[in-house]
Amino acid sequence: MRKPIVGVMGPGEGAIEADRSRAKQLGRSIAERGWIVLTGGRNTGVMDAASRGAKEAGGLTIGVLPSADDRNLSEAVDIAIFTDLGNARNNVNILSSDVVVACGMGLGTASEVALALKTGKPVVLLGVNSATVAFFQQFASRFVVVETANEAIDAIESFLHPSV
Amino acid sequence: MRKPIVGVMGPGEGAIEADRSRAKQLGRSIAERGWIVLTGGRNTGVMDAASRGAKEAGGLTIGVLPSADDRNLSEAVDIAIFTDLGNARNNVNILSSDVVVACGMGLGTASEVALALKTGKPVVLLGVNSATVAFFQQFASRFVVVETANEAIDAIESFLHPSV
Amino acid sequence: MRKPIVGVMGPGEGAIEADRSRAKQLGRSIAERGWIVLTGGRNTGVMDAASRGAKEAGGLTIGVLPSADDRNLSEAVDIAIFTDLGNARNNVNILSSDVVVACGMGLGTASEVALALKTGKPVVLLGVNSATVAFFQQFASRFVVVETANEAIDAIESFLHPSV
Amino acid sequence: MRKPIVGVMGPGEGAIEADRSRAKQLGRSIAERGWIVLTGGRNTGVMDAASRGAKEAGGLTIGVLPSADDRNLSEAVDIAIFTDLGNARNNVNILSSDVVVACGMGLGTASEVALALKTGKPVVLLGVNSATVAFFQQFASRFVVVETANEAIDAIESFLHPSV
Repeated sequence: MRKPIVGVMGPGEGAIEADRSRAKQLGRSIAERGWIVLTGGRNTGVMDAASRGAKEAGGLTIGVLPSADDRNLSEAVDIAIFTDLGNARNNVNILSSDVVVACGMGLGTASEVALALKTGKPVVLLGVNSATVAFFQQFASRFVVVETANEAIDAIESFLHPSV
Repeated sequence: MRKPIVGVMGPGEGAIEADRSRAKQLGRSIAERGWIVLTGGRNTGVMDAASRGAKEAGGLTIGVLPSADDRNLSEAVDIAIFTDLGNARNNVNILSSDVVVACGMGLGTASEVALALKTGKPVVLLGVNSATVAFFQQFASRFVVVETANEAIDAIESFLHPSV
Repeated sequence: MRKPIVGVMGPGEGAIEADRSRAKQLGRSIAERGWIVLTGGRNTGVMDAASRGAKEAGGLTIGVLPSADDRNLSEAVDIAIFTDLGNARNNVNILSSDVVVACGMGLGTASEVALALKTGKPVVLLGVNSATVAFFQQFASRFVVVETANEAIDAIESFLHPSV
Repeated sequence: MRKPIVGVMGPGEGAIEADRSRAKQLGRSIAERGWIVLTGGRNTGVMDAASRGAKEAGGLTIGVLPSADDRNLSEAVDIAIFTDLGNARNNVNILSSDVVVACGMGLGTASEVALALKTGKPVVLLGVNSATVAFFQQFASRFVVVETANEAIDAIESFLHPSV
């Protein structure tokens, strides 16, 4: 009965334009399907872009922040969960998402993908390079590699509603 | 721009009927004002009653759970945040609430009221006894003691919109 | 085979001289018995005094800090656990202690006593007033109230080695 | 004045014999230098082997556990920190270590290396393959890749006492 929650992870300050652009489109498409976007909640990089995209499409956005207050909160977050856990909040992001999308890659995102795969959450890797794919392939198989936001949506759909 | 989040804390398995009844009415009234209800998310006691009340009035409910999965999740929770933090998640509840209401009292609730007052969050004590009031009065003053859900709503309103 | 760990909790910046004095003597006596002192690790109040007392007697001290680094670390801590959890680290203090002593009372300490009693850890309340005792008595019985560090040591001993 | 703490991370149940063997030797050598070994504390894989090695050499061992109690605690841990944080405890391991050694690789270890590099902690990768090195090289440079426990000790020494 609860709406699916799609976690969109990715670089913060270090995000490149391609990551932010894909994140925004992804956020918009997630919202259009009636799913909820969950991010790390800060006003930068992929998390900010995904939340903004979702708001453009009238969606609901959750931000799970490393901080205790709203100093770096994205304006596009509807529901802010202030954890004061620092990087330990990455695990909360993962556990609270039905599917995890990594839109681009960085060290924080790598920790989230690793914890997601360890926990058994389905993962979509969007716009990552072959070195990243080769690394995670050593340890897990429950992830899909895609290049566009549209392909990511198809992959999320498949994870949420596996056909027989 | 974000909707106010009212945290409703209180006993779980040990809740008495009066606590649950007040929590349900409180949840309903919070939702009627357009505020969001945040609880500990489990399917028992005050947290479950408050979420159920809010859903009866068409409100949005957030549950911040101690567990990693939905085994003990209340059916009345719309957005489940799975923390896997055990009792350490109590601090997340507090930090993510604009006002904290303790509806009844127990050891978990006591830890939340203590952390809320320490953090400077406004607190409403609903239906607690004089020993509880006497205890917290030693350390803090930013709390209000009330007997009914209606009075709690007035107190929340005063904290959210202080008149000059 | 592991040495018993005694958690000494109490006010930080707000500690009064009597709390600090008792904490120092307590730390010394814990170390003399060959037990390990665990505190919140900061360089202030009861935690600092207890660690200093233990070091005077050549004991081992553990500090479990709310921060990510050693900026506010007590010089008397041998082993610093940096949690970056803020107040959520209070639960780690409790879980890692075989017996918890509250030396004085404040909001942070109240949260720790509440979580300790909830978890079933034995608690010694040292130098607290009747309002505090009356509050916790409502919810739990596995605690002892004492006035001196010597009495606290006896109480810890009884919890660690219950006679038949 | 505090003794250096060396975090030894690595696969748990999935550790291969080569990882466990290197971890044991590493634990022994760390203890011989007077440093403290910190691990994830469970009775399996690299963490158990590293702690056992350190105890053979009379060293001090810290275990930072994901659980709330000692059910899966290694016998070779002297000081057990029970976090009840699940995988979020990985960040506590990192922050509490002066140098982090990954002895082998897996998803949990990957999350720890990623968080360590993100936090700026020096990292030694011991016995990992080229895919792992290639992955982390994309994002950070403060790590050393070695093949033997002896080389790991030299690398730790260089990080702890950088020559001018």
